[in-house]
Amino acid sequence: MAIPVHPMWGPYPRLQSDLQSVLQVIESHLQIHDKRIEATIKELVYSGGKLLRPAYTLLCAQIGDASNHDKERSIAVAAALETLHMATLIHDDVIDEADFRHGAPTVHTQQGNQFAIYSGDYLFCVCFTILSKYARTLAHLEFNARSMEKILTGELDQLHARYQIGTSIKDYLARISGKTAQLFAVSCYSGAITSQATRRQTMLAWSMGHYIGMAFQIIDDVLDFKGDFNTVRKPTLADIRQGIYTLPLIYALREQPEKLSPYLNKKADLTDDELMEVLAIVEQTKGIEKSKRLARKYIDKALKSLSKLPDGDYKETLYELTTMLLDRKM
Amino acid sequence: MAIPVHPMWGPYPRLQSDLQSVLQVIESHLQIHDKRIEATIKELVYSGGKLLRPAYTLLCAQIGDASNHDKERSIAVAAALETLHMATLIHDDVIDEADFRHGAPTVHTQQGNQFAIYSGDYLFCVCFTILSKYARTLAHLEFNARSMEKILTGELDQLHARYQIGTSIKDYLARISGKTAQLFAVSCYSGAITSQATRRQTMLAWSMGHYIGMAFQIIDDVLDFKGDFNTVRKPTLADIRQGIYTLPLIYALREQPEKLSPYLNKKADLTDDELMEVLAIVEQTKGIEKSKRLARKYIDKALKSLSKLPDGDYKETLYELTTMLLDRKM
Repeated sequence: MAIPVHPMWGPYPRLQSDLQSVLQVIESHLQIHDKRIEATIKELVYSGGKLLRPAYTLLCAQIGDASNHDKERSIAVAAALETLHMATLIHDDVIDEADFRHGAPTVHTQQGNQFAIYSGDYLFCVCFTILSKYARTLAHLEFNARSMEKILTGELDQLHARYQIGTSIKDYLARISGKTAQLFAVSCYSGAITSQATRRQTMLAWSMGHYIGMAFQIIDDVLDFKGDFNTVRKPTLADIRQGIYTLPLIYALREQPEKLSPYLNKKADLTDDELMEVLAIVEQTKGIEKSKRLARKYIDKALKSLSKLPDGDYKETLYELTTMLLDRKM
Repeated sequence: MAIPVHPMWGPYPRLQSDLQSVLQVIESHLQIHDKRIEATIKELVYSGGKLLRPAYTLLCAQIGDASNHDKERSIAVAAALETLHMATLIHDDVIDEADFRHGAPTVHTQQGNQFAIYSGDYLFCVCFTILSKYARTLAHLEFNARSMEKILTGELDQLHARYQIGTSIKDYLARISGKTAQLFAVSCYSGAITSQATRRQTMLAWSMGHYIGMAFQIIDDVLDFKGDFNTVRKPTLADIRQGIYTLPLIYALREQPEKLSPYLNKKADLTDDELMEVLAIVEQTKGIEKSKRLARKYIDKALKSLSKLPDGDYKETLYELTTMLLDRKM
């Protein structure tokens, strides 16, 4: 039975069916003695995530010569990269779960953390099992492992940059380049590789993925500052609370450092009211608009790389998908 | 400059020097933009761990034809497996650190956890980078990835088995087989593979490693029940506190289930005095002696596999090292 995927893929039946295969490959590699634990991990597979990264891999797997299109391999590589993404998501959850400021954790929370850490580790291994089973060469695998290292060092660098009022735009871009753009770049690049695209084409896929990832993360960071009128969702400002200073705030800090510093120096003690005052300053200084403008620029660069790739249906879908990212609300 | 290793390797200068090279390979692969973070991770490399697993890899790398002995490769494989071990150790630490029953965690603890989770993840990736750089074939790499999966599912199964009074000896052995014996088996096997040993020899290396790992974990579990007169260290009984029921207790449970159950049903609420009463029952029922006897049996099996390997200096060292494990105090 096909595993259902996010409704956004409805208009693309072929891609939709390939994404279902991606989830099936992941599912078939999850084998744990304790079936209850296996079921818990499998829930993630069925959770209806957007599967953006594997979609990019599958689409980029159509760049090269169609006769060389090794579908099984591209689906497997997409599955490996999505498994990696799931592993990091689980570990991010541990970090969030561990963030209780009020009151001690329950035993249940403790067991949850342990479970989550080992589950994430297990998924890392599954990712490498799938990769080593389907990778073309050891060199390709080494490349993937190194890319993943970069993603993790991006996360580590971000941890260390917390509560740094002096974070520059350049620091920020370097950080999201390692953390988010890297995985999008690898996803696109790996797809191109499985289609035996030319070297120039795989490099174009890489740069397209990189620019998409940059835009994706900037938009993600902007969403943390924005309410949503449809869902009456208030801005969560979770990043500022955690000391992660993202682009809208960095733009505002350039304009109004004296006004913002007293707030930010309070670090974790910032109250909800004070956070709203910070938000007001970010809005006054147009930090959100400037950020969206930069995201738009990255999308344009991505589309420029895309335009140089060979024509085909995949190209149209890549165009639509990438343009759509700018308007996403969640 | 050579990185110092544990003094236990003093009597084996060649192995000592190769173990230093193992640490150097690990160190050379640690490259993080933020040098302070890099230094923290490197401290682990310099921490003077026993390096038992890489020692077994290096010794087993001398099983095959000496002319085929690819030293660079065996050192790299040993480095990869030790990196994996370090990654799991870091994550185990998070789990212990996260175990605060009294009072909320400090911000420092939080940052420590986040840092540790990502550092462990990063080391997982480094492990695979080293492996994919030096593995002979993709099949060998897939084998390693699958082995690592088993180690993690062993940990996951153990989490789920917590506080299960009905844990049988068979359950226990299956658990430590996945968790600990697997890594020892892979360490020995991978060494043999790099020396291009025959298929029979690599299988012997595997079974030797498996038996060593079984004995190693049983002894580890026994040590949790034993004080040490030299260091006036009291038994920590950390496992029982955490609901991890190991061999000495399982033996005791077979003899005195009615006496032990009321204690164990208290789970995390067991007081220190009650723990000492549990210990007394384990001693009465000779749970510790029986466990040591089983460890001895596994060591004997390991030595039997070893005896079938080709003669050489490495064999003598393997014999000494393996016999020594029975008497370790920490």
